This record gives sequence, C-alpha cells and structure tokens, in this order.
Amino acid sequence: MEKSSSASSLGPLGLDIAQSFFKPIQQAAPPSPTKRHTKISVIGVGNVGMAIAQTILTQGLIDELALVDVNPDKLRGEMLDLQHAAAFLPRTKILASVDYSVTAGSDLCIVTAGARQGSGESRLNLVQRNVKLFSCIIPQLAHSSPDSILIIVTNPVDVLTYVAWKLSGFPPNRVIGSGTNLDSSRFRFLIADHLDVSAQDVQAFIVGEHGDSSVALWSSISVGGVPILGFLENQQITFTKETLENIHKEVINSAYEVISLKACTSWAIGYSVASLARTILREQRRIHPVSILAKGFYGIDGDEVFLSLPVQLGRSGVLGVANVHLTDEEAQRLRDSAEIIAQVQRQLNVTNLDIS
Amino acid sequence: MEKSSSASSLGPLGLDIAQSFFKPIQQAAPPSPTKRHTKISVIGVGNVGMAIAQTILTQGLIDELALVDVNPDKLRGEMLDLQHAAAFLPRTKILASVDYSVTAGSDLCIVTAGARQGSGESRLNLVQRNVKLFSCIIPQLAHSSPDSILIIVTNPVDVLTYVAWKLSGFPPNRVIGSGTNLDSSRFRFLIADHLDVSAQDVQAFIVGEHGDSSVALWSSISVGGVPILGFLENQQITFTKETLENIHKEVINSAYEVISLKACTSWAIGYSVASLARTILREQRRIHPVSILAKGFYGIDGDEVFLSLPVQLGRSGVLGVANVHLTDEEAQRLRDSAEIIAQVQRQLNVTNLDIS
Amino acid sequence: MEKSSSASSLGPLGLDIAQSFFKPIQQAAPPSPTKRHTKISVIGVGNVGMAIAQTILTQGLIDELALVDVNPDKLRGEMLDLQHAAAFLPRTKILASVDYSVTAGSDLCIVTAGARQGSGESRLNLVQRNVKLFSCIIPQLAHSSPDSILIIVTNPVDVLTYVAWKLSGFPPNRVIGSGTNLDSSRFRFLIADHLDVSAQDVQAFIVGEHGDSSVALWSSISVGGVPILGFLENQQITFTKETLENIHKEVINSAYEVISLKACTSWAIGYSVASLARTILREQRRIHPVSILAKGFYGIDGDEVFLSLPVQLGRSGVLGVANVHLTDEEAQRLRDSAEIIAQVQRQLNVTNLDIS
Amino acid sequence: MEKSSSASSLGPLGLDIAQSFFKPIQQAAPPSPTKRHTKISVIGVGNVGMAIAQTILTQGLIDELALVDVNPDKLRGEMLDLQHAAAFLPRTKILASVDYSVTAGSDLCIVTAGARQGSGESRLNLVQRNVKLFSCIIPQLAHSSPDSILIIVTNPVDVLTYVAWKLSGFPPNRVIGSGTNLDSSRFRFLIADHLDVSAQDVQAFIVGEHGDSSVALWSSISVGGVPILGFLENQQITFTKETLENIHKEVINSAYEVISLKACTSWAIGYSVASLARTILREQRRIHPVSILAKGFYGIDGDEVFLSLPVQLGRSGVLGVANVHLTDEEAQRLRDSAEIIAQVQRQLNVTNLDIS
Repeated sequence: MEKSSSASSLGPLGLDIAQSFFKPIQQAAPPSPTKRHTKISVIGVGNVGMAIAQTILTQGLIDELALVDVNPDKLRGEMLDLQHAAAFLPRTKILASVDYSVTAGSDLCIVTAGARQGSGESRLNLVQRNVKLFSCIIPQLAHSSPDSILIIVTNPVDVLTYVAWKLSGFPPNRVIGSGTNLDSSRFRFLIADHLDVSAQDVQAFIVGEHGDSSVALWSSISVGGVPILGFLENQQITFTKETLENIHKEVINSAYEVISLKACTSWAIGYSVASLARTILREQRRIHPVSILAKGFYGIDGDEVFLSLPVQLGRSGVLGVANVHLTDEEAQRLRDSAEIIAQVQRQLNVTNLDIS
Repeated sequence: MEKSSSASSLGPLGLDIAQSFFKPIQQAAPPSPTKRHTKISVIGVGNVGMAIAQTILTQGLIDELALVDVNPDKLRGEMLDLQHAAAFLPRTKILASVDYSVTAGSDLCIVTAGARQGSGESRLNLVQRNVKLFSCIIPQLAHSSPDSILIIVTNPVDVLTYVAWKLSGFPPNRVIGSGTNLDSSRFRFLIADHLDVSAQDVQAFIVGEHGDSSVALWSSISVGGVPILGFLENQQITFTKETLENIHKEVINSAYEVISLKACTSWAIGYSVASLARTILREQRRIHPVSILAKGFYGIDGDEVFLSLPVQLGRSGVLGVANVHLTDEEAQRLRDSAEIIAQVQRQLNVTNLDIS
Repeated sequence: MEKSSSASSLGPLGLDIAQSFFKPIQQAAPPSPTKRHTKISVIGVGNVGMAIAQTILTQGLIDELALVDVNPDKLRGEMLDLQHAAAFLPRTKILASVDYSVTAGSDLCIVTAGARQGSGESRLNLVQRNVKLFSCIIPQLAHSSPDSILIIVTNPVDVLTYVAWKLSGFPPNRVIGSGTNLDSSRFRFLIADHLDVSAQDVQAFIVGEHGDSSVALWSSISVGGVPILGFLENQQITFTKETLENIHKEVINSAYEVISLKACTSWAIGYSVASLARTILREQRRIHPVSILAKGFYGIDGDEVFLSLPVQLGRSGVLGVANVHLTDEEAQRLRDSAEIIAQVQRQLNVTNLDIS
Repeated sequence: MEKSSSASSLGPLGLDIAQSFFKPIQQAAPPSPTKRHTKISVIGVGNVGMAIAQTILTQGLIDELALVDVNPDKLRGEMLDLQHAAAFLPRTKILASVDYSVTAGSDLCIVTAGARQGSGESRLNLVQRNVKLFSCIIPQLAHSSPDSILIIVTNPVDVLTYVAWKLSGFPPNRVIGSGTNLDSSRFRFLIADHLDVSAQDVQAFIVGEHGDSSVALWSSISVGGVPILGFLENQQITFTKETLENIHKEVINSAYEVISLKACTSWAIGYSVASLARTILREQRRIHPVSILAKGFYGIDGDEVFLSLPVQLGRSGVLGVANVHLTDEEAQRLRDSAEIIAQVQRQLNVTNLDIS
C-alpha cells in the first residue's frame, strides 16, 4: 500500500511539470535536517480516531499527519477523504499505512485502537485482549518515535495508559491518558447550559477514573470566577448532597446515553483530544484533567496507577500536577477510584510488560 | 422529544441558581426583536450531515444550529455528542428535533437527507423516491424559514436542487446545490499534490453535472497565478488530450473509490459545504463551482436545469455567474451534461412539483 | 471626501469589466433588505482606535467597518492602510468619513475619540472638554444607529460612559464602558507570568473605577480552577495584606508605565475591546468586567454612576451582573470608588445632558 | 534591562506559590533539549516592526517572540503592551532587549530597523547609513541564530536584502526581502474592490524592484480562475496600454499616499510579512512575490541583485522560483529594474561586506 495517494494518471506529464515548474535559485543550500516538522500519528481510524484526526487538521496545528490501522481499505478511504479537503485547509501532509514506519519522527502518538466488548465477554477479558493489542502497537510506536509523547484514548483508558507506559519504556511524563478531560467538558456544559453562560466561562473538574468511580470536585466549580458552592451558601440556597450527586451521575451516564443512541461517541472526544494536542505542541502550559501516574498524590501510595488529576501540560508532556485542595471525602473517593483501577491491573498478566 | 438537552437533575437547584446568579441592571430595556441570530439547519444527521454540522460549528460561524432527522435516537445522540464539546468551542446553541419547527428563522438550510440505492434498484427509481422525500422536507423548510437560502447536498444533487427549487417556491438565487465544489477541490488536490504546492494556490474548476458528465475547465487551471496550459506550451512540454482526460477520470473515480473503501464520504464534503456556508453568511463574495439554474448560459436553452458553474455567492445567495470563456468543446460538453440532467428530470413525476 | 477608496484609474475600463464579468441568473430576486450585515463603527483613529479596528478586522467578525475622525488625512491614510491588506484577510468592507452618516446601521459603535490633557490642565477641565466633544459625537451616533450598542473607551471612561448614556437616550443595557476589562487582563498576566501558566487559565477580576480607586477581588482569583487564597491558606503560606496590595498597585501602575515608555497604550486595549465586540456580536454570553450603570448593586444607592462589575454580555448588551460575593472591605472599597466617580459627575455641567 | 517583565511585587510570595502550586510526578524525566520552540525575532519596534509583531502574535504561530531595538524605553513599553493582552491570546513568551542575545535560537529574524531619510539627504547617502546599521545588526543575528531565515523589510528593501545576504554569510535561500508581496496585495485589492469580489479570489503579481521600477505581470491576473486579459479580449472590451499603466501607477503611488497621509505605513505591511512568516514556519509551500537572489532568471546575468519574483516558500526559505512566462516587454522591464538596483549596489562601499 502506498503511503500517500499518488496522482498516477498525472504520470509522465506530472513528472515533467514538477521538474520544470519551479527552478532553484543559485547557490541555494540543501534543506537543513534540523528544520523538523511537527507531526502527529493517530492509531486506529474508527469514529474516535477520525474525529480526532479531522479536528487536529482543522486547527492547522501540524505539518504532517500519519494514520495507522489494520484495515487497509478503511485506512486508504479515510486518507483520501481528508486529502480531498485540501483546498479548504492549511497545507498538511497526510500519510496512511498499516506499517508503523509511517509514524517515524512523530511528536505525538494518539492511540485509539482497541477491541470491542464481545457479547457476554467479561470486562477483564476485554482488557486482557486490549493489553495484547497494545503489546503489538506500543513498542512499534516507541521504536519509531522514541522522543514522542503518547496519548492513550482506548478504554479502559486508565489501565491501558499504565500498560502503554510499561510497554513504551518512556518516562511517565510522556505517557498521558485522555482520562476525564471529556467528562469535565460534559460537566461544564451541563452547568453552562443551565445558567445560559458560555461553557468557556465555567471551571469544573472531574478527576479519578474515567468511568463510574470518577470524582466531581465541587469546590473547583466556578462560573466567571465566582465559586458556585460559596455562592449558594451566601445566597442561602439550600441544596442536598443528593442533588449534587445527581448532577455527577448525569455526567457519568452521558457516555452511556450517547453510545446507546448513536452507537459510538466521536465529536466531543475529537475536540477533547485535539485540545490536549494543542496545549502540548504549542506549549500552552494549560491545566487539563488527564490520566497520569498518580502515585504519591493525595495518599495514593500503593500500586503505580494512572488516573486523572488536574495536570499542567506542555511540550515535555506532564509539567506538574496542580495542588488542588480536596475535602477529606473527595480525597477518600479518589483513593477508592485508584484502588478500583489497581484491582484490574493486579489481575492482568503483566509479567512481560515491564520492558523498561 | 426535547429540543435541547435539559439538565434535568439540576432541576430545582438549577432553577434557583439561574434566577439568582445574574441580576439585571436598573432601567434595562428588553432584548430587541431586531437583534436576530445567525442560524443554520442541517436536515439529515448521517455521515455527510454531521461532518457538515461539525465543521460549521468549529468555524464559529453561527449562533444557533438546528438538526432534523426522522430517527429520534440518532438525532439526540448526535446533538448530545456536539453539546458535550461546548468547553472547546465558541458558544453555539444546538437544537435537534424530528419536528421542522425547530428550524424556524434559519438563514441557511442544508439538506443531506436521502434514500440509499436499494440492491437492484434503478437510478431513476431512487431519484423518484428522493423526490417524494423532498416533497415532505422542502415545503416545511420553506414554511419555517421563508427568507432562507437552501443548499442541497443529497444526490443526484443537480436534479434534486431543481426539485427543491420547484417545491420551495423560492427565487432561484436562493436555491443552490453543493455540485462540483467538492470535485473541484479533489482536482486541485491532485494537481497540488503532484507539484508539492499548497492546494490553496491552485485554481481549477470542474463544472457541469456532479457526476460522470462533469466538465474539467483546463483553461481555468493556474498554479500561483501561472496558467498551466500556457506554461506547458511555453516549455514545449508535450501532452496528449488523453493525459488530461485521465486526470479528469481520476477525479470522477475519487468519489466511487472513497465510497468503496469506507462506505461513505464525509470529511471532504463537510469542509466543502462549510466553505459555502461561510462565503454566504459572511458575505465573502467568493467564487465557487456550485449547482444553479443554468438556463441561458453557454447555450443551455431548453429545460430549466441546474448544474454547476463558477458562481459568486453572498448573503443573497447567487450573486452572479462568472463569465468564463469556454472552448467550443467545453461548451458542447456542458450542454451535453445539461441534456443528461434534463432527461432525468423529464422522466420524473413532476406534475405536483410546481407549487410556486 | 469619498467614503471608500475609488480605484479611479480603473475608471472607464473598470466599469466595463464590472458590468460584464458577472451575469445574473434568470428569475433572480433582488437582494432582500432583511439580510442585514454586521457592522462596527470606530470613532477616533488614534493609536487606540486603530488597534481596536485592526484586531476586530483580523477576527473576521464583521461585514463592514466604518471609521470616523475629524482629521480627514489621517482617516484616509488609515483606511487605505487597512484596505491594502485585503488579500490577507476575510473580505470586510472598510469605509471612512468625517461625516457620521457613514456609521448608519451599526450594530456596535466604539468611541475612542478624546481630548488629551494639556500641560497644567486640571483633570476636571479635561473631563469637561471631553463632555463637550461627546455632546457632538454621541447624538450623531444615536441618530445614525438607534439600535446599536455603545462601547466607550475614552478616559476617564466611567464618567464618560455615564455621559454617553445620558446623551444617547439609550437604555443602560446598551451603553458599556471598556472599564477594567484591560486592568483584569493585566492582573491575570502578572499572576500567569509568575506561575508560568497560560493567562487563559487564570481567573481574576478587578472592578470599580478604571483608575486609581479600582478594587482587586482577591477571592475571585483562581488558577486552573484552584482558588488562590484558599490554596495559600491550605499550604500555610503566609502573606500579608501589604503583599496583595503591592500586586494590585503594580496593575494600576502598568498603564502609567506603558504611557511613560511609549507615549500611549494600544495593543492590549485593542485586544481587550475586540474581545468585548466578539462576545456581544456573537452572543457568547461571557462574563467581562466592564463599566455599567451600577446603581443598586453592593449598596451603591445614591447617584447614577457607571463603574466596572462582572457583567454577562450578549447581543442585547448587558444581560446581567454576576452576583459575586464581596467581603465587607471589598464592598466598602467599591462604594468608595463609586463616590469618587460621583464627585466628578456632580461637578460637571450636565444641565443639558439629560436629553432622554 | 530585564528580558521579561518580572512581577516584582509578587516577589517572596510569588516564589512560594510557584514552588508549591505544581508538584512534579514521580520518575519524570527532565525536559528534552530536542523539544525546541518556534521563535521569531523582530528587530526595530517602530510602527512597521510592531504591526508585524502584533499580527504574528494574533496568529498564534509561535512559542516565543523576541523584540530588539536601540531605544530601551520604547522597547519595554511595547513589550509590556503586548504582554498585557495575554488573557486574549494563545500563550506566547514575549522577550525584549537591546542585546541581541535575546534572539538566540530564532527560526526567523525579521529586520525592520532603519534610518529615516534626513532633510536634503541623498537617497544614496541614506542607503549607505542603513548599510552601516546592518553591519551592526546582521552579524549579531547570524551569530545568535546561525540556522535562521532572515526577512528584510527595511527600505530600500532589495539592496538591503543583498547587503544582509553578504553580511550574514547565509546561503541565499535563507535571505528574503519582503519585496513586492505588499505591492501585489494592493494590486489585488484595487481589482477586487472594483469588481466587488474577495481579494482572496484575485491572483495578480507585481515583481521586480519594490519601488518605482516594479513590473506588473498583466498576464498573471485572474479573478476566480478567469484570466482577465483573455476575458477582455473575448468580450471585445477595448483597453489601451495607458489604462493598464495607470492602474500600475496607482499601486506605486499607494505607498507614497499612505505615508503622506498618516506619516507611515503599518497595518498592510504587518499582515504581509506575517503571511510570509506563516508560509515559512508552517511549511505551507505557497507562492509569494518576494525579493530573492535573482541572478540567472529572465536574463538577469550580471550583478548579484535581489528583486521580487514569484517564489515558493517553506521551512527551508526559498524552495524555488515559479517559472512564469513573461512577455518580451515584461522581461525587459524586469532586467531594467535589476539594472537600477545594481547601480545603487555598485556605488555602495561594500569592500567589507563580503564576510562569507
């Protein structure tokens, strides 16, 4: 399979044109090898992978995009469909191959490939199958782009980010899971929609596991700089713990609801991961709730688990973890969330994972 | 079905917050009804409709987006998936309903809904089924947004744009088919890819039917302002007519190839139609090859057919047709293309179409 | 003076081209008068006015920009300089005139014109001179664009926004002063620079007078959703009130410092006012600290003064004031700030202001 | 002088916050030195330099911007004014210094510094003074950023680009003059304004000297892909050579007119150079008319002169010259233009220029 669509019918004509259309100037030096491009690779061209790839393309963030998948037809179809939009976009080189060598020299590798849960299959069995898949994917990515940053999107994202870390041999600041960045956006939308404000003026974090044990940080919610809990107290607006729990439940259910309605999620995860790519590659040093090696934070002291915390991201990956004050209950829930993830990890066959 | 996701669990609490979080200033006047929003409706939330909707959202072009489809589950799923990205996008109100009243007051209505060709179904039968579908869709759109502009994307796009014109009762400058805007982008990509230039520096038009009888305007091709045919002649680069035909064939085959590989086209048509929306709503007065009432141009004198010509677009829809000089052969091909479309139209049961 | 540069030498040739280059389609309806454009007028083309105009142009926010000034040469020079960039920008019609009729039909009028303080001139005398200037400007704007929103930038901005309100006869939700939107950005930069985070992740408001009596809302400061004062307490980092005062003083001194160094401020106020224009015209419903009719808030009960509070803005202008909790000390400072402004107002010769 | 504004009053408090607000994760690797930033330096912070710097900032193109000037007060004032806009912009580190070490590691150095013509001063004397200035500037830039690309904006731009080439010792593909990129934009605006189309749909090149001997390439003009000269002939619209000359003259006069009206040009040159920066740093491979080493093209065979030709630009600087067909008259005018530039060069005291 060709890496890039070759305009074959331009064939002999094209060659002549390309050679004579531009003339070099005298004494020109050859292109410097130090002038490197910005490159992202996306592994898996399903709905999630393609929504991410297309949103990144639209942002005009990169010079080169490489797509990898096991299905060569789907892969070529998606590549052509993106290339056909060239007239409407900043110029970006788009490559696609079943061979990981196409990803060589990536700044960022985004992994969305994963097995789907079979009917009657246990969750643990699914995880084990994805671990096997990652055993194939991650070492090839690490080999082709040894200085890259990995963003893992495949679910269960926290466990698989841990697995990717082990398989890559990368330092942990270069292995990130998309985690609760999307959950937090859903949380912000629910609040913004109700108050009829811009979601960009709402700050709110969900941390912990990207899943049922996630933790809503109520004290972190502010609207236009106004902390909401303090506002409610000052206004003597009574609310029960149950009310807050219900809002959090609605966020958790959002993913299930979208999947039950349209059979996948795509757009929101696309924008969410593209926002991470932008913060990292353009050194924006913004704070995102993403899944990282959480050991040592908030009393998470046992296993090396990955879960989402408010993280400052930049060109080196994880720059640091924002020192948010949690209530005792929030901290306990976070440790509970860590334990749930740890339990899954302990059941994995990880004897051959630690290759670092 | 609700128009917009209601954050139900915020329920009683939400109400209290919304009422007390913002306080009106003294002597404030009520919002003026003349301050109207910019609104686009997309009919049909399949791959094409959603790629269009998402690209328009990303552009931050509009204040309100309405989605309509016959499948309420898919519809709600897509609406939620877009809404969940609120934190990453300019604020845009997103509505969805099976009821066309949700489209009221649109500036632009984009129709992507259509039947799929059944196994063994004749093309004419498919058209007839889509005409029936349009008999339901178009009058409701025209009723809800009598001043709107219609962009038809459903295939066969030229015939269906004619049908939409008849069913809407709109003046023809407000009924446009997406036509060969996408074919032209594919043409520009093929040329740009081969010369390794930006497709935005390549001018090239494909006109006529969006389909097998489309016409490549070789004389219109220029790269960075350099007309290609003249360049070839000046460089004494020989090329045969067959070579040019092959390039054109590759463009025509692109659509078939992408569909055979990934079962649909989505990204490129999404960017293509979003570019039309931008030119129209932001009064950019740019020139796009789109399908319009072509009678009276280049000797197309018989039936009222719609096909693509280089058209200047703006807030009033079609502003004019660029007076491109065609060779005799190109003009003849264009008339042939018109006749092919006219033949399909004549076979349609259109007795009840002319409602204007 | 011509409103727009006429390409005079294209003269007879140009006319012929324009008439024949585009041909109308058959049965086309004339452009609908209800298809209105988005238009901004900027009054005063000094450094501040032009930085605002240029930043708005770059955003691609509007269809038409009108510039007004008393100096026809400077005016035409600035118009041409912007027009010459047309190839690099979305198409926007740029007009300029000494006559206010050029502003007709504006959605937003931004006033930057103002007298400069003479050597040895008292501040009150300067204000009185600007009131006289506004007596000329504001009624003409209100007459030409009776449904527009006014943004006042001329200093002293709070008093002059009050004056503009009185002179316009507009409801107060359509008269806004740029106020402390810029002071707050400087505040956010200082904090972000020190913590090496993105200023877009820092929330912090300065309210009250745009000037020496402004009030820093310490409780509103958060970084990535983490409230700073609470963080300091939790970390047992000791800080004195004096330290906080010094940071605030640095913000206040910023304006003086920039003016002493480069003789004006321009870029930051340009971006600041352009951000207001975007929130208003694109109905973003975001919260900005801007100067509005503050009577009735936080115990400001006497005079009708304008000062900055955290305000939600949209297409109707002021949508509401965010109900921020102030400490007793902050509220007292705000009332003190209001009183300082009120004292200036009382000294003005306003007998002929109240034309509403 | 400090490179960046230090938030001095945050002093001891700030230090504590910065150290404790973010915590590193365990086992994190130090930032890799290979993760390099994208950096632009602008030399000279007058109207031109600042319009360029501000437009580049708005584009969100770079990670770091360095400003250099001989006037430390103006320099610090401009730096602060840009920094104060941080809340409205993507995060970009902004540095400023009178010392060229601040430019170290730039990808692009843009030189706008230059002497102003004294009253009664001959043009040659002015050039000689700017050569002396460049003898100071260019070697320091070349030393601090040996792999950078130079864009020269100072006038007379063609001669000074040649001088910068000699002084830098760089290969000629990395030394570019802003040349007629702006003249061409003015040309495109005049045509677009008259036809009421988007200037982005007009292709038209002015080449040769950025000055009175520039050459308009009439055959290169097309509107929406329609070549204008051919259109006029097909429409039998008569036009005289004089008419075309007048349009060209109007372009040449534009610069003089703007300077006479507003005492400088700023906005259009700002957008023009920012567009070059974008094409180069984002490897857009677009074609711009800019000043390059023209020896060997179109019979320019004697001296090593720089003048504008349609050039493809990318990350390596000049990628090639588009092989435009010129009429004999156009080619002769281009050689005449080259000779005018060469004459100035021969009078320069260049004995100490060739340091390469």
